[in-house]
Amino acid sequence: MGSTFGHLFRITTFGESHGGGVGVVIDGCPPRLEISRDEIQFELDRRRPGQSKITTPRKEADQCEILSGVFAGKTLGTPIAILVRNQDPRPADYQEMETTYRPSHADATYDAKYGIRNWQGGGRSSARETIGRVAAGAIAKKILYQVAGVEIVAYVKRIKDLEAVVDSNTVTLKQVENNIVRCPDEECAERMIDLIDQAKRDRNSLGGVVECVARHVPRGLGEPVFDKLEADLAKAIMSLPATKGFEIGSGFAGVLLTGKEHNDEFYIDQQGATRTVTNRSGGIQGGISNGENIILRAAFKPTATIGQAQKTVTNTGEETTLAARGRHDPCVLPRAVPMVEAMVALVLCDHLLRHQGQCATLTP
Amino acid sequence: MGSTFGHLFRITTFGESHGGGVGVVIDGCPPRLEISRDEIQFELDRRRPGQSKITTPRKEADQCEILSGVFAGKTLGTPIAILVRNQDPRPADYQEMETTYRPSHADATYDAKYGIRNWQGGGRSSARETIGRVAAGAIAKKILYQVAGVEIVAYVKRIKDLEAVVDSNTVTLKQVENNIVRCPDEECAERMIDLIDQAKRDRNSLGGVVECVARHVPRGLGEPVFDKLEADLAKAIMSLPATKGFEIGSGFAGVLLTGKEHNDEFYIDQQGATRTVTNRSGGIQGGISNGENIILRAAFKPTATIGQAQKTVTNTGEETTLAARGRHDPCVLPRAVPMVEAMVALVLCDHLLRHQGQCATLTP
Amino acid sequence: MGSTFGHLFRITTFGESHGGGVGVVIDGCPPRLEISRDEIQFELDRRRPGQSKITTPRKEADQCEILSGVFAGKTLGTPIAILVRNQDPRPADYQEMETTYRPSHADATYDAKYGIRNWQGGGRSSARETIGRVAAGAIAKKILYQVAGVEIVAYVKRIKDLEAVVDSNTVTLKQVENNIVRCPDEECAERMIDLIDQAKRDRNSLGGVVECVARHVPRGLGEPVFDKLEADLAKAIMSLPATKGFEIGSGFAGVLLTGKEHNDEFYIDQQGATRTVTNRSGGIQGGISNGENIILRAAFKPTATIGQAQKTVTNTGEETTLAARGRHDPCVLPRAVPMVEAMVALVLCDHLLRHQGQCATLTP
Amino acid sequence: MGSTFGHLFRITTFGESHGGGVGVVIDGCPPRLEISRDEIQFELDRRRPGQSKITTPRKEADQCEILSGVFAGKTLGTPIAILVRNQDPRPADYQEMETTYRPSHADATYDAKYGIRNWQGGGRSSARETIGRVAAGAIAKKILYQVAGVEIVAYVKRIKDLEAVVDSNTVTLKQVENNIVRCPDEECAERMIDLIDQAKRDRNSLGGVVECVARHVPRGLGEPVFDKLEADLAKAIMSLPATKGFEIGSGFAGVLLTGKEHNDEFYIDQQGATRTVTNRSGGIQGGISNGENIILRAAFKPTATIGQAQKTVTNTGEETTLAARGRHDPCVLPRAVPMVEAMVALVLCDHLLRHQGQCATLTP
Repeated sequence: MGSTFGHLFRITTFGESHGGGVGVVIDGCPPRLEISRDEIQFELDRRRPGQSKITTPRKEADQCEILSGVFAGKTLGTPIAILVRNQDPRPADYQEMETTYRPSHADATYDAKYGIRNWQGGGRSSARETIGRVAAGAIAKKILYQVAGVEIVAYVKRIKDLEAVVDSNTVTLKQVENNIVRCPDEECAERMIDLIDQAKRDRNSLGGVVECVARHVPRGLGEPVFDKLEADLAKAIMSLPATKGFEIGSGFAGVLLTGKEHNDEFYIDQQGATRTVTNRSGGIQGGISNGENIILRAAFKPTATIGQAQKTVTNTGEETTLAARGRHDPCVLPRAVPMVEAMVALVLCDHLLRHQGQCATLTP
Repeated sequence: MGSTFGHLFRITTFGESHGGGVGVVIDGCPPRLEISRDEIQFELDRRRPGQSKITTPRKEADQCEILSGVFAGKTLGTPIAILVRNQDPRPADYQEMETTYRPSHADATYDAKYGIRNWQGGGRSSARETIGRVAAGAIAKKILYQVAGVEIVAYVKRIKDLEAVVDSNTVTLKQVENNIVRCPDEECAERMIDLIDQAKRDRNSLGGVVECVARHVPRGLGEPVFDKLEADLAKAIMSLPATKGFEIGSGFAGVLLTGKEHNDEFYIDQQGATRTVTNRSGGIQGGISNGENIILRAAFKPTATIGQAQKTVTNTGEETTLAARGRHDPCVLPRAVPMVEAMVALVLCDHLLRHQGQCATLTP
Repeated sequence: MGSTFGHLFRITTFGESHGGGVGVVIDGCPPRLEISRDEIQFELDRRRPGQSKITTPRKEADQCEILSGVFAGKTLGTPIAILVRNQDPRPADYQEMETTYRPSHADATYDAKYGIRNWQGGGRSSARETIGRVAAGAIAKKILYQVAGVEIVAYVKRIKDLEAVVDSNTVTLKQVENNIVRCPDEECAERMIDLIDQAKRDRNSLGGVVECVARHVPRGLGEPVFDKLEADLAKAIMSLPATKGFEIGSGFAGVLLTGKEHNDEFYIDQQGATRTVTNRSGGIQGGISNGENIILRAAFKPTATIGQAQKTVTNTGEETTLAARGRHDPCVLPRAVPMVEAMVALVLCDHLLRHQGQCATLTP
Repeated sequence: MGSTFGHLFRITTFGESHGGGVGVVIDGCPPRLEISRDEIQFELDRRRPGQSKITTPRKEADQCEILSGVFAGKTLGTPIAILVRNQDPRPADYQEMETTYRPSHADATYDAKYGIRNWQGGGRSSARETIGRVAAGAIAKKILYQVAGVEIVAYVKRIKDLEAVVDSNTVTLKQVENNIVRCPDEECAERMIDLIDQAKRDRNSLGGVVECVARHVPRGLGEPVFDKLEADLAKAIMSLPATKGFEIGSGFAGVLLTGKEHNDEFYIDQQGATRTVTNRSGGIQGGISNGENIILRAAFKPTATIGQAQKTVTNTGEETTLAARGRHDPCVLPRAVPMVEAMVALVLCDHLLRHQGQCATLTP
């Protein structure tokens, strides 16, 4: 049952990269939300393959169909099912994968777990699975914006050793979408694009870091002790393909500071609100949002599928070599940006509803 | 309902730092496991305060009582409830906290969420809450060891800028317990102890990194797509107090490598098993364990509670300063080691049972 | 999130009676199960409208498509998504329902809860929603049969005051399918058909009782204390549209007996197995299956939608009258039979996997 | 994990009849609810053994201790743990049960499932487990009353063939508590008491029916499709020990009516509210509360433990006879009344919070 995420705003994704299609069922969505297919498609277009020279050339329009849960342009409160058909399959590209495991991919572990595997592509471990997440995230984003004006913006912070300078307080979607690598530091973006382009020509791949900021998040979201907001965000992010690390606020660099240096001192702002001078906490204290910007980072490893020959083994225990022929991204980061935003939105929306359920029932 | 963790092997913790006590209910434990109170107490003793000069001087023996679920030395398959009474409370130390928020602590966010707070100590955000986790982890560890010989060993990898050299393939519990900072690099450990001791004298605090290895984990644990093993481990770790980051395998450093450099090539070992030459994956591929060692790291920030004066505010919106008087750890890392082991054990045990449930029902 | 059912074998249904379609996502299905579209379609054909003169004349072939989770005729262990498109809609039949509430139907309560409603038919409260359950139940049945030879047979036990005589120990699917009312007592079935036919002509409707037996259920299924097998069966049955009551074993009639009369005495059978002489427990003791036949009964009220004029109100608070024009069943019982079987199969399959997960991990 | 119930207002019970004690952890409780130990103890006193000549003579004061989650008389929003110690154990009474199975009890099925059993009493299947439910129910009742004025009143409707006449619209707790059998029909109550008294002298036992009404339940509670309000109520009731049947509204008798007779016609009352003339729906339509009284009935079998000799078997497969010596109730109905109320309160409170979470987040 690992295909379900969320407690009140709950999504279940389905589908392999090859077969009838992929999609999502969203249960628990608040009723009467105005939502259109186009709003969902907008986010899917940011995620789809073939959108630029530095993404996989697999051509899929990824057009979504809303099967249920929306009536006359509004949510019904009942499950919203969204389907995207698979197209442009080239199973011949994958013939070799029937018997040969791609290094650092999920082929061998799926066989070990299930004793069977859809070898015509990545199956369930393909990034196509994230279509359902991104579609659901579009709805979660709209709820968050409508209820509290929440803005969620992710961007490429780093590719290999190139790190961008971005002001998380002001960065906008428009700035992020301004170039194909989705890095709002234009000068750095150009170098990133060149680096990815070179890796592609080398039949190699690159990794990097996506940073995400959520602004105007209401105070009080997150539930001690296991469902701390940062814990659910960590799970959300680390469930994305190719992630190797997660940080909130100061992250690993925070260990270099002393408590005196790290603590966020409080002050009262001009509106009388309790605020923190600094934000090393990343907008969360004690597992609960404090009203400051939520800032997190996700490390993505270089794409496992590369065109260069690598040593590997077959499912019958023979050693061999493999040079992947399937279409793939030389770097997942640009397309990971909308995925990260979606996962952050899903967590915040779920906790928004949970907080409403527990803490708004009795009047203060 | 954020106090419950796990799906088949499921724990629910309860209790604040001040009040009747803290504890845990473990539901779904396999029946007929031999377990004694002493085995649980052993892990609690590693976690308890006052165990050395570099931990909080709060004196609590943290003696546990098994209330249910064990009969004649064996688990019944029914809920195991474990209770530890609170002792040695000094509410006077906390009088100031009734109105004043400690910077980077959970006081302000608890008030924002719940509109009420047990100000006689950290309440539910206190590290005392982890007693229940550690007690449950002791049982999870035993199941994992008995079923598959799994060994879980955590240790302090870094304090501030001091990083230890540890061979994760061979490190033992005995080596970890050999010094009070729980760092198996003895030379580095001495310097860490001095550094913490100095911070304590400065009424300041330090952070660091705990690394954890799980050896002999069976292949096949973890469930695509949201309950990937690394996702559930990330949530488990990031639900511990004071964590700011999580890494699996190569982690954030992995982004500096190309795909060709990062991929773990396969080979067939002398027993005919599929193995990887390197282990940048950290024992998990596609969200599923691959039989290699699982390696993860957790970043802990410096303790928020410090004796130096800091700027803060009151619950009525007044600016003030605070110098904490309560007893606290100058560095949580030494006591975090058994907590990290417990959380890893809980995740692995839950997935062991889940894998058994889904994949062992039909004969191959 | 009320659209998800089951803990390890977990289904999520979606879809309204009018719109893109209805379906189900099944997560946690054991891998490597041979399953064909035809096996699923067989059960859907038993449920579909228009199959006889005593069911609704709505014409829907209800052809299913497996979107994911099955590869080369076998389950992958990943989510199985099944879709049935809606056809033959006649929204004009429902125009009046936009403003007028059908008595004892869900129109008014959906409006009260959600503030919006798909009035072009029953929406989510339509029996069409059960398509997803029946499709999932077909897979659950196959697992149960393959693992343990479990046979699940439901049948119409009563229509209004006509009660059939059926031997639950021997009744077969073939006997049930032998007539259009699905009552294996042929003589009684004829009278039932006449009674329903008469109600149809009267623009009235009838209710009744479905009985279900599950034979060869392994000992040990069910989890104290809230997930007792009869508790989960009760929830499963009472979640079907139009149910008003549930009984296990002796049921309400059991209260007329003394303990001495009601208790099922034990004996040892010729194979040395512990058996009970009688089966007033209905195959479950202490919430756990005991190896005897599981017997349960479900009361279905007469269909709410009738052609006769009834007093009702509009969504703006006006009193009015309504005579339904939509196509509907004069008696849901014949089509409820495969629904009851499906729900029983889903509960048993979930508990089979759960039992395997908790109790088969440690060797005895 | 069958010891947890509820989704937002979630309880986990623990404990066997013999051992350290029994209790409950309540997670997700709204913060700032005023609650005292006495309010909880009041309900436990209604449930405790030894309260009259027609209940078990086991003497247990069942005094509860609140371990956590309440501070200065108010709930904190964190887990509320409540513990009741076991007292007055007489394991000698149960020595025979180590090897001999009581007919229609859980001894044999627990052994079949777990391969181990606490034979010193009923273990986890003992009615003592319901202490945790009743304690949690006291809190749920208070929330429901405070938020919406909900009144939940259960009473004994039938003992064997004696059926009481009770007006569910007006019956009060005081009337119920006016006699030891908890039947508000005083004349019938006397005959019930005599009947139970006679059964006790006969070393036999009796069953019956508890009816429960919930008044002033807000419209809109319950979630299609699996978590329909009647489905969750059915599960709640059927998880109580000794239950064999569940009815909502018209129940099994409803099948004798035609649709025209059964439907609840709508009208507009003097306050302009949509109401139903009759209430055969039992306050729930389409799985959602409609504002009318919720009415349900639960069938309880005669107590399995009786003093008369019965044929049974041992855990080694030998046939034998058994005459129970342990203290037990000749009829569980009087003590089942507060249990039924508690389970109804738990379901309604959970759905109140869930409804708030999903449907009150967006403004209409």
